[in-house]
Amino acid sequence: MQNYQALLARLAEIGHINTSAAVLGWDQQCYMPTGGAQERSEQLAVLGKIAHELHVAEETGRLLQAAEGEAAGMPDGSDEKLTLRVVRRDYDKATKLPTELVTEIAKATTLGHETWVKAREASNWAQFAPTVEHLLDLSRQVAEAYGYEDRPYDALLDQYEPGMKTVEVERVFGDLRTGLVALVKDLAAAPPVDDSVLRRDFAPEQQKAFGEFIVAKMGYDFERGRQDKAVHPFCTSFGRSDVRITTRFDRNWLPCALMGTVHETGHALYEQGFDPGDDNTPLSDAASLGFHESQSRLWENIVGRSRGFWDVYYGDLQRHFPGVLDEVSVDAFYKAINKVEPSLIRVEADEVTYCLHIMLRFEMEKGLIDGSIAVKDVPDAWNAKMSEYLGITPPNDAEGCLQDIHWSGASFGYFPTYALGTILSAQLFDKATSDHPAITTDLAEGEFASLLSWLRENVHKPGARYLPAELVQRACGEPAQSHSYLHYLNTKFRAVYSI
Amino acid sequence: MQNYQALLARLAEIGHINTSAAVLGWDQQCYMPTGGAQERSEQLAVLGKIAHELHVAEETGRLLQAAEGEAAGMPDGSDEKLTLRVVRRDYDKATKLPTELVTEIAKATTLGHETWVKAREASNWAQFAPTVEHLLDLSRQVAEAYGYEDRPYDALLDQYEPGMKTVEVERVFGDLRTGLVALVKDLAAAPPVDDSVLRRDFAPEQQKAFGEFIVAKMGYDFERGRQDKAVHPFCTSFGRSDVRITTRFDRNWLPCALMGTVHETGHALYEQGFDPGDDNTPLSDAASLGFHESQSRLWENIVGRSRGFWDVYYGDLQRHFPGVLDEVSVDAFYKAINKVEPSLIRVEADEVTYCLHIMLRFEMEKGLIDGSIAVKDVPDAWNAKMSEYLGITPPNDAEGCLQDIHWSGASFGYFPTYALGTILSAQLFDKATSDHPAITTDLAEGEFASLLSWLRENVHKPGARYLPAELVQRACGEPAQSHSYLHYLNTKFRAVYSI
Repeated sequence: MQNYQALLARLAEIGHINTSAAVLGWDQQCYMPTGGAQERSEQLAVLGKIAHELHVAEETGRLLQAAEGEAAGMPDGSDEKLTLRVVRRDYDKATKLPTELVTEIAKATTLGHETWVKAREASNWAQFAPTVEHLLDLSRQVAEAYGYEDRPYDALLDQYEPGMKTVEVERVFGDLRTGLVALVKDLAAAPPVDDSVLRRDFAPEQQKAFGEFIVAKMGYDFERGRQDKAVHPFCTSFGRSDVRITTRFDRNWLPCALMGTVHETGHALYEQGFDPGDDNTPLSDAASLGFHESQSRLWENIVGRSRGFWDVYYGDLQRHFPGVLDEVSVDAFYKAINKVEPSLIRVEADEVTYCLHIMLRFEMEKGLIDGSIAVKDVPDAWNAKMSEYLGITPPNDAEGCLQDIHWSGASFGYFPTYALGTILSAQLFDKATSDHPAITTDLAEGEFASLLSWLRENVHKPGARYLPAELVQRACGEPAQSHSYLHYLNTKFRAVYSI
Repeated sequence: MQNYQALLARLAEIGHINTSAAVLGWDQQCYMPTGGAQERSEQLAVLGKIAHELHVAEETGRLLQAAEGEAAGMPDGSDEKLTLRVVRRDYDKATKLPTELVTEIAKATTLGHETWVKAREASNWAQFAPTVEHLLDLSRQVAEAYGYEDRPYDALLDQYEPGMKTVEVERVFGDLRTGLVALVKDLAAAPPVDDSVLRRDFAPEQQKAFGEFIVAKMGYDFERGRQDKAVHPFCTSFGRSDVRITTRFDRNWLPCALMGTVHETGHALYEQGFDPGDDNTPLSDAASLGFHESQSRLWENIVGRSRGFWDVYYGDLQRHFPGVLDEVSVDAFYKAINKVEPSLIRVEADEVTYCLHIMLRFEMEKGLIDGSIAVKDVPDAWNAKMSEYLGITPPNDAEGCLQDIHWSGASFGYFPTYALGTILSAQLFDKATSDHPAITTDLAEGEFASLLSWLRENVHKPGARYLPAELVQRACGEPAQSHSYLHYLNTKFRAVYSI
């Protein structure tokens, strides 16, 4: 297995360049002074170019082919064969992209981030529009380079959710929309929940302290991670032993940081939970973005917004904010953090309306990529969809089409994975509690080890060994389905709203 | 000049890799969780290896030779010729080091830093000793690879102060020692200064606020820099528009952060002050480490510890710490921050004794490199020299031989530049005030623009165009000399001590 070992060493080196770039990206969003933007864009362009060149080099192809020969006689489920399947998929994808295009995307997205931050501050889509035009053009070039059977958008989706087609997303979203519409309709008829207790004065330092207390309880390892402030919260990994989360604090809106921290921790637990034996190999990676989101959503919503969780930890929360929540019952608090109401900002949306935000972005992206929506018309198109899906209209671009970071990074095709992961979170949780009923009683006591253990074995440790569809089948014994999620939503929210 | 342009583009790319590594180094010392050490060492090793390989590649040599041909007819003082002189010197140096050695040093110093931090916490030299043995061995390999005329230590010195020989440092330090001994003797006979006011309770947030106020006044551009906390303060540059300083805060010892911040700002003003037209070229660099230190020492001591400075800013300092310094006169405060007393920690030493700390390290390094001092004997040898030079003995390794970061980075040969720069700071200041007497009156009014302007023109903007000896001659109209510094010390401290 000489070539196999040489291939892995080469890929580890490329991996170290990519995680170095991730450190630069983290710094850019957390600490970099504004003056550093131009140089940072050049640094990231150079690192991206070198990593890409090493990846697509003939030597990589030669080693890969030779390694495939060496592994030919091994069993199909062997780590060697599973590793080589990942490498082959990535290599074939990477060799389709010209180096110049990769370099150009790295530069354009770095500057794109700065432009987006400023346009969002100015709440002015027109400032951001030329950047989006350029990034869409580059993304269409990516789709053409990858190739696709039906629609260019398929090629972009496939980057994040291997094997997924636009038409399949449309089908799944169609099923989901039917169920959501029925539930939203019933909830709208019930007396509204009052969430004003969440808008009181919550000192950010105490928000940070409580968040760190909770996520350490959940199993996030601060020896192998840290939390910082960022405009748009994210989780980033520089390897299994340095997985960082970022949080945005809003003094007068508790769920922003509280649930955001738990959400990013769900991502971080996945990354911290890869098999140590897979360190620096292609297997030390997520199965897909949908799987990644299934972990963040599971911890944020199914655990973090559950009645059992707050029955245990509400007293701790009260103690972190003396005098602020003293007279608020756990019942009132639980209902407040589960209020369902159409709202403007995706990352702050409730569980029931969340996927409708995703459907809107999916429709926008399809239109932008195929040209049926012009970039300059995005604010109008966005606002029209918001009205159609959620019955509300954003008062400005900052709270509308400029709210998300994704397009500044040319991440078209990424949004649908949020909804796919959301659906999957309930399916995985159903299977975990069915395999180990003790998980339910442990959670009721505020203990997360048994749940984390099931996820570690069934989702985290497998890493990138299996395609998303295979991993769902292995973990759940069935293909992906949305009835677990709709059942979960109906059971929980009909109780919250007493209907 | 086609080859010349191609050469510059190639070097800019290498520069971006190196500044990327600098970002990783900054993060490692400011924010990285402990678990990230191993992966960080691998990331830095890969970046170091790639930058080195690109630098020493035959293609670089070919472009350099061709560019030298293209520039042959140009005047000797042209930027092209000055640039190519820098590139030739660096290239010849770099091609002498084998890639494996560069990679090994990058790994060993990254792990070395972690080991040093732990050994220092444990105050146990023995924990650090095997690391030092390894780093000395690697440094001897570096000296052999570079080559030298007289002593291996010459080759190490030359890395930081091009052209400098061990015997020259011995001569300069000999001259300096004579003057220092006489002054220290006279000061010791005078009544001691009371600096207890500096040991009061200074809230770190206010220390940070005052430090930022002062360094912004001096001209540090926070749009192109930032300040963070680190165990060992440093200044690092990711390019002229992202130059960062770090500070250590001691609640009960005001000068630690206060003067440390001003010191690092002196370094940062140099890096922020390179000519924008030199961006991403080999000229956008310091002339030498000695020149770098001349800038930090000038701002820290000649400006920041001057009577004129505190006559203007002492009221601001008092206002930052309500109730703490109310009854302390500016005269008492000025004397306190200029107290002369042999002490254990180099970075906290006064101006008069500082260079004796450097001489000690210079003697230790020479002995370690030539083998006349064994690594295990460092604590004893260190303590004996402390007793000989300063009349005091460190009570433990943390306050003795483990206090400095430098050896963990294999930076043997670096320390002497501190004293060389210290001497130069006074020589430059003499010339600046002689060229523009208004600088003296401006400083007395707390205005720094005219001083900074002289430094920008005469030291910062020239960048790496000239060898240190050439730049001293150009800026001062004479070779380096120590009488400016000794005159400055004698004038200032005989007044402080009324002798």
